[in-house]
Amino acid sequence: MNIIDMGKAARKAAAALAALSATDKNLLLHAMADALVANSDSILNANAQDVALTRLKGPMVDRLTLTSKRVEEIAAGVRAVAALDDPVGEMVSMAERPNGLIIGKRRVPMGVIAVIYEARPNVTSDCAALCIKSGNACILRGGSEAIRSNSAIASIMRDAIGAAGFNPDALQLVEDTSRESAAELMRLNEYVDLLIPRGGRSLIESAVKNATVPVIETGLGNCHVYIDHPCDEEMGVDIIVNAKTSRPSVCNAAETLLVHAAAAKSFLPKAAAALTAHGVEIRGCLRTQEIISCTPASETDWSTEYDDLILAVKIVDSSDEAIEHINLYNTRHSEAIVTKSYENAQKFLRLVDAAAVYVNASTRFTDGGEFGMGAEIGISTQKMHARGPMGLRELTSTKYIIYGNGQVR
Amino acid sequence: MNIIDMGKAARKAAAALAALSATDKNLLLHAMADALVANSDSILNANAQDVALTRLKGPMVDRLTLTSKRVEEIAAGVRAVAALDDPVGEMVSMAERPNGLIIGKRRVPMGVIAVIYEARPNVTSDCAALCIKSGNACILRGGSEAIRSNSAIASIMRDAIGAAGFNPDALQLVEDTSRESAAELMRLNEYVDLLIPRGGRSLIESAVKNATVPVIETGLGNCHVYIDHPCDEEMGVDIIVNAKTSRPSVCNAAETLLVHAAAAKSFLPKAAAALTAHGVEIRGCLRTQEIISCTPASETDWSTEYDDLILAVKIVDSSDEAIEHINLYNTRHSEAIVTKSYENAQKFLRLVDAAAVYVNASTRFTDGGEFGMGAEIGISTQKMHARGPMGLRELTSTKYIIYGNGQVR
Repeated sequence: MNIIDMGKAARKAAAALAALSATDKNLLLHAMADALVANSDSILNANAQDVALTRLKGPMVDRLTLTSKRVEEIAAGVRAVAALDDPVGEMVSMAERPNGLIIGKRRVPMGVIAVIYEARPNVTSDCAALCIKSGNACILRGGSEAIRSNSAIASIMRDAIGAAGFNPDALQLVEDTSRESAAELMRLNEYVDLLIPRGGRSLIESAVKNATVPVIETGLGNCHVYIDHPCDEEMGVDIIVNAKTSRPSVCNAAETLLVHAAAAKSFLPKAAAALTAHGVEIRGCLRTQEIISCTPASETDWSTEYDDLILAVKIVDSSDEAIEHINLYNTRHSEAIVTKSYENAQKFLRLVDAAAVYVNASTRFTDGGEFGMGAEIGISTQKMHARGPMGLRELTSTKYIIYGNGQVR
Repeated sequence: MNIIDMGKAARKAAAALAALSATDKNLLLHAMADALVANSDSILNANAQDVALTRLKGPMVDRLTLTSKRVEEIAAGVRAVAALDDPVGEMVSMAERPNGLIIGKRRVPMGVIAVIYEARPNVTSDCAALCIKSGNACILRGGSEAIRSNSAIASIMRDAIGAAGFNPDALQLVEDTSRESAAELMRLNEYVDLLIPRGGRSLIESAVKNATVPVIETGLGNCHVYIDHPCDEEMGVDIIVNAKTSRPSVCNAAETLLVHAAAAKSFLPKAAAALTAHGVEIRGCLRTQEIISCTPASETDWSTEYDDLILAVKIVDSSDEAIEHINLYNTRHSEAIVTKSYENAQKFLRLVDAAAVYVNASTRFTDGGEFGMGAEIGISTQKMHARGPMGLRELTSTKYIIYGNGQVR
């Protein structure tokens, strides 16, 4: 099937999905989860081929590899989405106007959501579950490394949808993993209401530059932790160690540590010892180099998202300088201050331009689950439509419904 | 100043604007309004040149022409925006998580908003007022027909901002009205957070196709009124006459009348008489032609936004057929059903895909003022970010602010 035909089929399936009750959608999701577990063998076979043929190396191969336990986790993820509240139909507001018109704002599905993603096969089932629960049809286009796994997962889920008596085109996977198929999907304005790119910088930049359908930028994270003065330095060490090392490859991990000059002499040796014990390479500014032994940082370090056990460190003279540095170099994702100052905490929260701004907590909490919204489809780093973790509600739009009794203007 | 420099200057002004209190922003807006009235003569002089040189004709010239009364109305529009509630700082939600993190969602300005528009000079002051009140810097690019008027209005407002002690770059007008300046603005991703095109189909299509910055589609309206059976036929006549004739050039005017076959024989002659009395040309389907005298409609009539005293009329056999016709041809703007059936009313509200769906009221109410949000910057016909009339709140984003006490993950 070509991509235009997939778009048409998705549009048709979306109209039917939009009319489904939460009960029906949950039934569908449970049927999909059951089918994944029941057909675990065929998923594992397809995955074994992906793994045998992959050009990926090291931990990336681990992320690609499925086991029967992981397939069960994938199915559990789908059931967890079924357990979330259905956002569709929620009345955001409703009020009577002076002329008697009753105007309500009702939450409705977006329609058709396209997701372009890389690597891990669980993204296929996660995205499908989130889209279907929010009443949207989805067109998924994963990367070539996981294409056999993705294809097996999608086809099992589609069969389950059909067997439950619904239109399987609610979930479609683009089997063609060429650049052209992604480019075509990015310009499918007649059928796609929203495109979410999930992956590395080049994918996201390509979507922003080339897409004519509405796009939500996700997931690039050059995040900072700023150690203010005065602060609880022990807390500061815990937070930077957590933000840098608990999962260095993710977007909400810290990449730069900023330290107030008055705290530097006492704080940096303790932080460096703890970070080094976790295998972190420190790249410090000139003043940092005078206090701890480290690799010299260059200008490019301030704007680099290492996604690795490397941390840039810079000493600043004030919280204002910290805020200025952050707003100059960050990717508007997650930023933290560690402070005892009420004034600096409030200023940081107000002036730092990011999706999530923390006082005395690790940047690692920027995550749909941690924010209480259940699973997420991505973390938006743009300002339009949704900012921060995107759950079910962020996959919906609204429409005004107006009850009149003959009003004219 | 070139457009990149304007972007840089706007970004800088936006950071300062974001930190202003509602009191300061209102002070600024009143200073701008006062300055417009005080400098009325220079606006009228500039406008007289625009009018003398215009290639526009008829009612379009009237829309371009300013009088001292209209300048006063423009200033009153700015004061009306000052009187609206400031959306910035509103806490959309705030809750404590099980781990003690207190997570709040705070409404914040977008940053820099670009507006590309055509013709009427009052759009310059309206957009400037709405952007500044919502804490956003704006880059405005009006059309060539009103360039001298726009330039005079923008320069007076900028001077007033400067005289009040704030950064005048919060409001910038692109003096170059070439296609190239619009194209450049559409791709100014580093400095523009949101682009709103206001104008005809070609401008909006060009923005959707060419912009790499986030865009909100506005204002195309192929709107329908559907006369169900049974319905209050007199109400139906009032509503279609109002929806078609009260202001035929606007986007929320009706373009097609759909009539249930069981109502057609009784309803259509009454409606035709009333519409003809208002100078409306009717283009009817084959079955309509059997009941009233009219011009034959062709397939293209169903998708045409006349913006004129022309109305397409089609007889349908059921409310389902009406909904199907609407979802096939509409531009997702405003749609109305006139009915006595509870079931059909609810079905129409649920299944018609549009920003505003009416029962027993005219489509003409889709308007920021009528919806109680004060002035509007446009009417969104897309599903992402904002749908329907866009007021101050729709010019904002949110950010998560998180209060912790040492939490790590």
